[in-house]
Amino acid sequence: MKYSKIPLSQTVVTLCKTHNIQHIVISPGSRNAPLTIGFTHDDFFKSYSIVDERCAAFFALGIAQQTQQPVAVVCTSGSALLNYYPAISEAYYSHIPLVVLSADRPKHLVDVGDGQTIKQKNVYGEHVFYSTNLKLDLIKKENTSQDVELAIFKSIENKLERFLGLQKDIQTYNESEIHDALTIARLKSGPVHINIPFEEPLYDTVEELSINPKPFKISSREEKIDDFEIKSLMDVWHHAKRKMILVGVLQPNSIEEKWLQELADDDSVLVFTETTSNIHHPDFFPGIDKIIAPLGEDGFKALQPDILLTFGGLVVSKKIKNFLRKYKPEHHWHVDMFRANDTFFCLDKHIKLTPNTFFKTFLPLITHHTKSDYKASWLAVRQKRRKSHEEYLKTIPFSDFKMFNTLVKSIPRQSQLQVGNSSAIRYTQLFQLRKDIQVFCNRGTSGIDGSTSTAIGASVANNKQTTFITGDLSFFYDSNALWNNYIPKNFRIIVINNKGGGIFRILPGHKNTDNFDTYFETKHQLTAEQLCAMYGFEYAVATDENTLNSNLEDFYEISRQPKLLEIFTPSALNDEILLNYFDFIR
Amino acid sequence: MKYSKIPLSQTVVTLCKTHNIQHIVISPGSRNAPLTIGFTHDDFFKSYSIVDERCAAFFALGIAQQTQQPVAVVCTSGSALLNYYPAISEAYYSHIPLVVLSADRPKHLVDVGDGQTIKQKNVYGEHVFYSTNLKLDLIKKENTSQDVELAIFKSIENKLERFLGLQKDIQTYNESEIHDALTIARLKSGPVHINIPFEEPLYDTVEELSINPKPFKISSREEKIDDFEIKSLMDVWHHAKRKMILVGVLQPNSIEEKWLQELADDDSVLVFTETTSNIHHPDFFPGIDKIIAPLGEDGFKALQPDILLTFGGLVVSKKIKNFLRKYKPEHHWHVDMFRANDTFFCLDKHIKLTPNTFFKTFLPLITHHTKSDYKASWLAVRQKRRKSHEEYLKTIPFSDFKMFNTLVKSIPRQSQLQVGNSSAIRYTQLFQLRKDIQVFCNRGTSGIDGSTSTAIGASVANNKQTTFITGDLSFFYDSNALWNNYIPKNFRIIVINNKGGGIFRILPGHKNTDNFDTYFETKHQLTAEQLCAMYGFEYAVATDENTLNSNLEDFYEISRQPKLLEIFTPSALNDEILLNYFDFIR
Repeated sequence: MKYSKIPLSQTVVTLCKTHNIQHIVISPGSRNAPLTIGFTHDDFFKSYSIVDERCAAFFALGIAQQTQQPVAVVCTSGSALLNYYPAISEAYYSHIPLVVLSADRPKHLVDVGDGQTIKQKNVYGEHVFYSTNLKLDLIKKENTSQDVELAIFKSIENKLERFLGLQKDIQTYNESEIHDALTIARLKSGPVHINIPFEEPLYDTVEELSINPKPFKISSREEKIDDFEIKSLMDVWHHAKRKMILVGVLQPNSIEEKWLQELADDDSVLVFTETTSNIHHPDFFPGIDKIIAPLGEDGFKALQPDILLTFGGLVVSKKIKNFLRKYKPEHHWHVDMFRANDTFFCLDKHIKLTPNTFFKTFLPLITHHTKSDYKASWLAVRQKRRKSHEEYLKTIPFSDFKMFNTLVKSIPRQSQLQVGNSSAIRYTQLFQLRKDIQVFCNRGTSGIDGSTSTAIGASVANNKQTTFITGDLSFFYDSNALWNNYIPKNFRIIVINNKGGGIFRILPGHKNTDNFDTYFETKHQLTAEQLCAMYGFEYAVATDENTLNSNLEDFYEISRQPKLLEIFTPSALNDEILLNYFDFIR
Repeated sequence: MKYSKIPLSQTVVTLCKTHNIQHIVISPGSRNAPLTIGFTHDDFFKSYSIVDERCAAFFALGIAQQTQQPVAVVCTSGSALLNYYPAISEAYYSHIPLVVLSADRPKHLVDVGDGQTIKQKNVYGEHVFYSTNLKLDLIKKENTSQDVELAIFKSIENKLERFLGLQKDIQTYNESEIHDALTIARLKSGPVHINIPFEEPLYDTVEELSINPKPFKISSREEKIDDFEIKSLMDVWHHAKRKMILVGVLQPNSIEEKWLQELADDDSVLVFTETTSNIHHPDFFPGIDKIIAPLGEDGFKALQPDILLTFGGLVVSKKIKNFLRKYKPEHHWHVDMFRANDTFFCLDKHIKLTPNTFFKTFLPLITHHTKSDYKASWLAVRQKRRKSHEEYLKTIPFSDFKMFNTLVKSIPRQSQLQVGNSSAIRYTQLFQLRKDIQVFCNRGTSGIDGSTSTAIGASVANNKQTTFITGDLSFFYDSNALWNNYIPKNFRIIVINNKGGGIFRILPGHKNTDNFDTYFETKHQLTAEQLCAMYGFEYAVATDENTLNSNLEDFYEISRQPKLLEIFTPSALNDEILLNYFDFIR
């Protein structure tokens, strides 16, 4: 076996192994060579090489999103780690465990004019759950440069005992910091930052480890709620006549079917599910906007719940946010191990359990309402809206709306759908997805900046056929995502190219002026064709219903390269059709 | 005239005008709509629209690098501003004035689960010179949402006088913070961050300003040094027998010719100039590595100065850094308005003047040495090395080294050269550039991440023909730079494609293994051809001396599109030829 000669590198790599961190996404560099050498010479790790750190971190995010295990990203010193930041913030808000291992120059070489050097310490501020700055090994090297010696020994007596004592302290400190960071990444399921100073020479290797980290106890998450608390929750629940459940981003299969069924059987419970919730039941309410958008004052009052129970991550639908902020429930409980957002300014309870544990504890104690017409009346509305939805589809020409209808139906069975921000996920929400399709979208920060990379990371980590649907701006923004040697052949990208930011046509503001075209919609004439040629994707184009259908016929069949289908839609029509839709289904 | 209806937007835009900030680089978004509306409807500003914020900020950096005036970047809320960070860190270390105007949600909507929302406050940590979080306008709007009212009025009595008083305080606070930030951007010549919360509605406009910011005094930089200090400097200088001057990154024409001549006339003064210093004199020493690399112990001792005077930004040459760290001068003075790096661990004086002011003050007081052979002996070495350099060129085949020789000579008269990191600038340093060529390179953080965008920004802001020389990794890293509607037709890119990170072949480490190819050199088969087709560049290829020369014949001629020349060089040979070079000239 081959190891970096630098003990600190050995320690980091060994502890990542102890903590069972398997996927390592490495960007090239010299300062991080000791880590690269360590990770890539040990078959325990699956290492990936990705040059653009922004893409590398989102790619790692995609892997972690799927495996629900911490994934490490490794980069050199300087501005490299700043390029991780967009993905770090997404990981922070989406509770996805990412471990940043940034190589750094030793402290005495920071801010003295050395190249590729910035103030790396704590650079992610409050967007990581732990941040640590490891200490330089004090191993006496034959070729330690004069400066390092000076910096190290300037203020301490250079006696051997003292030196060895200090060295041991530093080793203990580093081990403990790494343990803490990796433990927190797992327990809090979020990003952490380990900054690692290395002194030259960086490329020396040895055949035997020179370190032997102390064993440590891996803590596990504790889930508990006391009886008194449960009792008070039961009281509130039993007194509420209208109960609304709203589910945001959630991993597939997070909740046992029997609990979903029990909720569905309660006539006083409405369950609104976002597409990203991966929760399905015939009596639940996906397509939230379809229900909410057409409502007036009376409708809102009839829908206003006494109690709102939420779980899962961030909610896409702005309409339900606005509704619940105005028509506040008396109680809002959020069930989540980690965080509870006061999204509707009426949160009164953060239940620190996983949703499944909560239902397992709570539902058996509950007497269900059977004499409420809350659910029934809204199921009738739902039915009506679904009918109008189908009718509307018959009246409209080829457009984003119509095309999404076709797309969503074409997604292969038992496959995974990754969706970009922002129009793409909003449109997807309007259509009903089959239960066998898993849906993911970066809704932590809802950025357009790394969706393609995330989708590719996810496709590498799961065994399913993965389709990624994205708008053109988001796709071109993350074009470097395709600079990736690990893309599975069955990976599929669908780019909806309406030649600009279609979302801006839906928002208020003055349309169809030069100013709007340039600074808001940011019109362009780009296509994905050249990128496909560059990065080895099969490329196909659809411009209307016919070419779309004929392309979709064999789009998901086995191929020698991954494929990209670019669908051109008429930007001037798209927003009109969407806005009319909400009128039509009223 | 059209303004955003939101007073805070009016205030920001008006004060940017007062502070004479002309160039505004806008990325699309909704939260920043009030700023976009404000800037783009006023002809005082030159606005640019760039989608990828990472590129947008480097583009702005390029403009600011040329104009030496603050340039503003404007983005929406969420992860958008994180994508600015690599350019911010470069601006921080290179002292280039950038003003980040990031739109944000109001405080009460941060961390409650709203989309595109992160903790934007102070997000750039210590890499900006000022960071401020403006306060939300308290203007009573007809359609103020319930939540905003709640948040604002929850704790204060809603009496009109109170409300107006508070509003005035907030307006005063915001004006003063903006003034401070913009003043510091200019005085410290570096990045600042103004975070700006906006409440919906975001798109309303008015015909008249509703604000009237107080006038303010624009402070100017003070340059002074007291007589006593000058006297003590003179003493040290007169006692020194060997004086070395080392010049890093510097704006062209920073120093009057007569002072350069006076320095050149002193036999005890050696002036080492980096390519990025834009300083030229027949008796100075460009090509530092050529002098230093072949030296042994005796040579180093003969070169070791008594006093080292440095000015300009960061130094590229690692060899001179290592030399001066080991053979320290007795004194090291750094002349710079802003910062003095203790690069050689012996800095004893930071002279806070511009170099020109320093020489103007100092040189007339100095008695020059005429009886030293310090300069003369090294001019002889320089002569010998230059001869060997020319001889070596005759012996080697087509390679990075040979190709740079040809390239550098081909750069048009009176033009500007932008160079990428890291091999590109290192090679450029080995060749002598003509005095009429201005050279720029992002050496603040020496990143590979935004060189193309910077070069494009520079080409837009200066009137010169601009050529950008870059390696392949750096070019593909910043491929989105080409997604830019402002690229001048005479802009030229030269990509040296050795199919991976050539720099890693020069560094230590085990070459020619799969591991090396994948994780260090990151080998690839990409070419720039498809990107050229995508973004409207004329594309040409060179693979040897003949095709290179024939391409260069008309490469700089007037064209209908900007042009890119891709030169393929043999990666396995390149490092060998470079390493042999330093042996040959010994």
